[in-house]
Amino acid sequence: MRNIRVILEYDGTNYHGFQIQKNSIAIQKVVEDVVSTLTKEDTRIIFASRTDAGVHAEGQVINFYTQTTIPANRFAQALNSLLPADIIAKNSEETAEEFHARFNACSKLYRYSILNRQYPSAFLRNYVHHYKAKLDVDLMIESAKHFTGRHDFSAFCATGSDVKTFTRTVKELEIKKTGHLIDVFIEADGFLYNMVRIIVGTLIEVGRKKIAPEQVRSILSGKDRNKAGPTAPAKGLCLIKVNY
Amino acid sequence: MRNIRVILEYDGTNYHGFQIQKNSIAIQKVVEDVVSTLTKEDTRIIFASRTDAGVHAEGQVINFYTQTTIPANRFAQALNSLLPADIIAKNSEETAEEFHARFNACSKLYRYSILNRQYPSAFLRNYVHHYKAKLDVDLMIESAKHFTGRHDFSAFCATGSDVKTFTRTVKELEIKKTGHLIDVFIEADGFLYNMVRIIVGTLIEVGRKKIAPEQVRSILSGKDRNKAGPTAPAKGLCLIKVNY
Repeated sequence: MRNIRVILEYDGTNYHGFQIQKNSIAIQKVVEDVVSTLTKEDTRIIFASRTDAGVHAEGQVINFYTQTTIPANRFAQALNSLLPADIIAKNSEETAEEFHARFNACSKLYRYSILNRQYPSAFLRNYVHHYKAKLDVDLMIESAKHFTGRHDFSAFCATGSDVKTFTRTVKELEIKKTGHLIDVFIEADGFLYNMVRIIVGTLIEVGRKKIAPEQVRSILSGKDRNKAGPTAPAKGLCLIKVNY
Repeated sequence: MRNIRVILEYDGTNYHGFQIQKNSIAIQKVVEDVVSTLTKEDTRIIFASRTDAGVHAEGQVINFYTQTTIPANRFAQALNSLLPADIIAKNSEETAEEFHARFNACSKLYRYSILNRQYPSAFLRNYVHHYKAKLDVDLMIESAKHFTGRHDFSAFCATGSDVKTFTRTVKELEIKKTGHLIDVFIEADGFLYNMVRIIVGTLIEVGRKKIAPEQVRSILSGKDRNKAGPTAPAKGLCLIKVNY
C-alpha cells in the first residue's frame, strides 16, 4: 500500500471543524468522500491537527493509504477537480510507509490575525478578529517572551480538557504589525484545547493595558484559567505549517 | 440640506451589482435602506461607479442629502452597525452641496487580480481569477504601454453598448507581480462597459503568447471586439479609488 501525503488549505467558515462529529459538516468527511471517489476504496485519512469550527488552514497535513495506481503527485489536482472551492489540495506526494500526519508532527505553527481599527473589513471578515479599541503592540511584544519556553499552560487551556499533561513548549511567539493588521505567530510542540485563542485573548488584554506584560508569568504559575484573558474568536486562527 | 459623502468597501460576491435592477439584490438598495433607517427619510444615494455582479470595491464613493442632525463623521460607524458584514462604510464626511459622486469624478482606478499557479486559493476564491497556464508577465508589461493614452476603445467594449463616444483616456496601466499573484491596475477618465475585463482578457492572451504585445495597437485601431481577448471573469475586479 502506498502512503500518500497531502497538504490542504481551507476556509473553515462553513464547516464544523476538521474532525468528523455527529450531525455536523466536517472537513474530514468532505475530503474522505472525495479521496474515496478517486481511489474507489473506502479511504480513511489521518490528519495533523483537529482545527475547530471556523478555524482555517494554509498547511493542514493529511495522509492515507491506497492501492490505486494514480501517480502520487497527481492526487492534488485530481482532488481539486472534485473538492468544493473552500478546500484546496496544494501538494501531494508519496511518503514513507510509516509516516503518520499526527504522531510524527514535532511542532505546529499557527497564525492569529487581529484587525485593529475602527471599521471592519468586507474581505477579511471571516479571517480576522476585528478589534476596535487601540492596542499597544509594543506591550504585546514585550509580553510575548514570557510565553516562550517550557511551561504548564493550564491557565491557557479550556476547562474540562482531558489530557495527561498541561506542559507544552512554545518555541516561538512573534507579533507582526502591518498597517492595521496584527499577526500573532505561535509555534509549539503541541497545543492544549483553545490554547492559541486564550493566549491571543490574553495578549489583547495586555495591548489594552488590562494585564501588564510581566503578569503573564504569574498567570502561568497560578494555573487558573480565570486569570488569563478571554478566548479569542475562532475565525482569526489559521494553521500555517506542521513540522516533522 | 447637508450633503454627506461616504466611502464604501464591499465584497460583491453575493450581489447582482451595485445599481438597483428589477428582481435582484443590489448593493445600492441595501445601502439606501440602511441610510433611510438612520435618517428616517426616504434617502436616495448617488454613486460613482455601477459595478457589475460579482465585482468588488475598496473605494466606491456615494453621496446623499439629508436633514438629520447626525454628525457627518458619525455616519460611517452608524451605517456599519446596520449594514451586512460584506458592505462596510470606511469614512463619512460633509461635502460641498454641489458635490456629485458620479458627475464630478475625473478618474477611477480599478485593480484586476489574477492568481497564476496550478492550484486555486481557498481564501481568495471570490477575489481573483485563477489561471493555471503560466503567463509571461514581461510580455504583459510590454503590451501595457499600448493601452495608455487617448484611444477609441470600441474593441474593448461589450457589444451593444449605447454610448456617445468610445474614446477614453487610460492614464495608467500598471502590472505588479507578487508571488503567484498578478495585479493589473488601470486608471482612466472613464470606462466603457466591460472595458477593464476585456483589457485583462487581452493581457492574458498576451501572457500566453496568443497575441503579440504590439498587436494591441492594431486591435485598438481595428475597433473590432472580436479581435480582442475574452472578457475576464467579474470576481477578479475591484474598484480601488475614485479621483475628484
